[in-house]
Amino acid sequence: MIARSEYLERMLRLRQRVAGAGLDAFLVSSEDSIYYLTGVSYRPLERPFFILVRPEGTPVVLLVPALEQQHLRAAPNVDEVLHYWDYPAPAGQGWADRLLELLAGQARVGVEPTLPQEIAGRLAHLSPRTLPLVEELRVVKSPAEVEMLRHAARYSDLAVELLLAASYHGVSELELFSQGRAVQLRIMRERGYDVLTSSVLVGSWPAPLSAQPHGVPTIADRLGDGPHIALALLRVNGYAAECERTYFLSPPGAEEKAAFAAMMEARRRAFALVRPGVPCAELDTATRTFLQQEGYGERLLHRTGHGFGLGNHEAPWVAEGSPDVLRENMLISIEPGIYLPGVGGIRHSDTVLVTRDGYECLTRHPMDLASLTITAGKRLSRLKGALVRRAAGVK
Amino acid sequence: MIARSEYLERMLRLRQRVAGAGLDAFLVSSEDSIYYLTGVSYRPLERPFFILVRPEGTPVVLLVPALEQQHLRAAPNVDEVLHYWDYPAPAGQGWADRLLELLAGQARVGVEPTLPQEIAGRLAHLSPRTLPLVEELRVVKSPAEVEMLRHAARYSDLAVELLLAASYHGVSELELFSQGRAVQLRIMRERGYDVLTSSVLVGSWPAPLSAQPHGVPTIADRLGDGPHIALALLRVNGYAAECERTYFLSPPGAEEKAAFAAMMEARRRAFALVRPGVPCAELDTATRTFLQQEGYGERLLHRTGHGFGLGNHEAPWVAEGSPDVLRENMLISIEPGIYLPGVGGIRHSDTVLVTRDGYECLTRHPMDLASLTITAGKRLSRLKGALVRRAAGVK
Repeated sequence: MIARSEYLERMLRLRQRVAGAGLDAFLVSSEDSIYYLTGVSYRPLERPFFILVRPEGTPVVLLVPALEQQHLRAAPNVDEVLHYWDYPAPAGQGWADRLLELLAGQARVGVEPTLPQEIAGRLAHLSPRTLPLVEELRVVKSPAEVEMLRHAARYSDLAVELLLAASYHGVSELELFSQGRAVQLRIMRERGYDVLTSSVLVGSWPAPLSAQPHGVPTIADRLGDGPHIALALLRVNGYAAECERTYFLSPPGAEEKAAFAAMMEARRRAFALVRPGVPCAELDTATRTFLQQEGYGERLLHRTGHGFGLGNHEAPWVAEGSPDVLRENMLISIEPGIYLPGVGGIRHSDTVLVTRDGYECLTRHPMDLASLTITAGKRLSRLKGALVRRAAGVK
Repeated sequence: MIARSEYLERMLRLRQRVAGAGLDAFLVSSEDSIYYLTGVSYRPLERPFFILVRPEGTPVVLLVPALEQQHLRAAPNVDEVLHYWDYPAPAGQGWADRLLELLAGQARVGVEPTLPQEIAGRLAHLSPRTLPLVEELRVVKSPAEVEMLRHAARYSDLAVELLLAASYHGVSELELFSQGRAVQLRIMRERGYDVLTSSVLVGSWPAPLSAQPHGVPTIADRLGDGPHIALALLRVNGYAAECERTYFLSPPGAEEKAAFAAMMEARRRAFALVRPGVPCAELDTATRTFLQQEGYGERLLHRTGHGFGLGNHEAPWVAEGSPDVLRENMLISIEPGIYLPGVGGIRHSDTVLVTRDGYECLTRHPMDLASLTITAGKRLSRLKGALVRRAAGVK
């Protein structure tokens, strides 16, 4: 849980940044930013929400549609809640009317990078500056946030464990996908579950589709030998983590083994660099250069990783061309991937916390090839172990 | 299913609109628009996608990150798939570089209303016009789309039936929320389930929280007498519908009964107006005026309804101030609500198809007070009926 005092502090720090940027007012409008600042979850859809944040000494004003007014009063750090009627509203009563009244007399206005054109177009006369002020606050996590992320990582491990235990030659995606429900119920029971800020995407990308990292399996797809990628992308009450493991249902051939070994060595090189002060681009260069040397240059489709927080993908970006530098209490994924057309994808992913002098890997599922080669005999003993642990209530 | 020929026709109609608006090029960038035009589902997150649509005689070009390239080649109506490396990319290799190359020489460029500032900012030198060209295409549904919406409506009815069957004095939200899973599995088995374009939000808003239409129940909340609102917001393989019913677990008192009757009469007045040619604002005026006359003016929090399609909320807007006029094969919700603080909310919602001479209500769950007052005795017989129907495989 994030304490009330932390929300107050987040708003204070944002106000300092607004002043530091020389702005009279900064307009917060994205779902994630409003959740980050207030702890109130909502889904705006077509009805926009705004927080008008000004330097200290002036009230923080929230502008919401009438039907959200009471729900948003729970925000601990908003001085005033104004509302508009609904969308669309008659002339003079809509969000734009209220917003322009609020912004009247503010000469230097900032907006968020996510602000859509249909809103930005109404503010064009103010020539607002686009600044990622909230994103910059979010990138380094507080101890309470790290705890939330630790929980999300733990359930990601659990999901991969369940996926592997449920996998056999011929298993359907329907069976695998339904493991997500087991994880979701476990979260509900143990941690509560805010439906608006929680999500569970759990499944296995079957070979050879796993060679397309963003291809989407259908419910009817079935698993053969591998390489499959077990994937758990979770968001648990506002905070996201992921665990991914490449696995096989029969002993892999030479090509898959070689790619698996190269992927593991690329990971090792990236992990070895993780500590405060290191540019994220260096991690990406380390994995890419190594994989190119090993002859996989044409088999790469994406960067080494990304950050976690409220989103499953956010800064810092572990990519060539990334300006980000690692700092203590940032979280990143490390997930170099090799994609063999017609064969499948070879990629593990972990959720990694940057510590004062290195890192802590928050996802801990075994990652060696032996543990991830699940033949029929091994599967039975795994399943038995999982059932015994579950019955014993081991988390 | 939407046929390949329908995607070709959608693109053709968009190209005609692009020419009609006097544009050299229109930049499609939203997830829903790209799905509507190509049938390919994806989740862009920080890696933007673009379709550059120009008047006929020039190729339709898709620009995607490298890792989506193969997956997006499935689009039936794209002539060329270009890619950029990843996000962020080194100077000269990112999405903005490729996009600006593509747009070079195009004098009159249009963009979508949803385009975020971080992208719009890179196009400022082109002074693009913001136009809802794809939204305008989407608002009237084809016969194949109506069929998809019919399925979504049928599962919404099923979800409400399951919620009511599962409701008893003291039932937890965890139990009710888990009914969503039953619906999800049923969809998977009967229709397949594209995880990127399907979603199931099923639960009951318990009294008195139901007086806040967008307050969010917690998993631990339990149901007392009512009025509760059973809510099923579904998206099934790309198309959305909803069914909502106000219900009670013991006979309601005079205040709730009166509000229920007023809500039903407001609905009747709105339904009576539904046919092609009627301005949506008239439906909203009809419900609002009636409810104000009945003394509920201070108990209204939102408009009468909204459209359905790829989204659970889209045009036409059934609202005061809406410029939309009903046309055959539009879909709308009709859901005037009365919110009694400390008591609860009184609102039904249905998914309604505008037909040539009136309407067809696609959601059909019983809506009368007797059917929705579920005392312990009645619950047992309902549950028995549901189990018998389920065992018999009745859909």
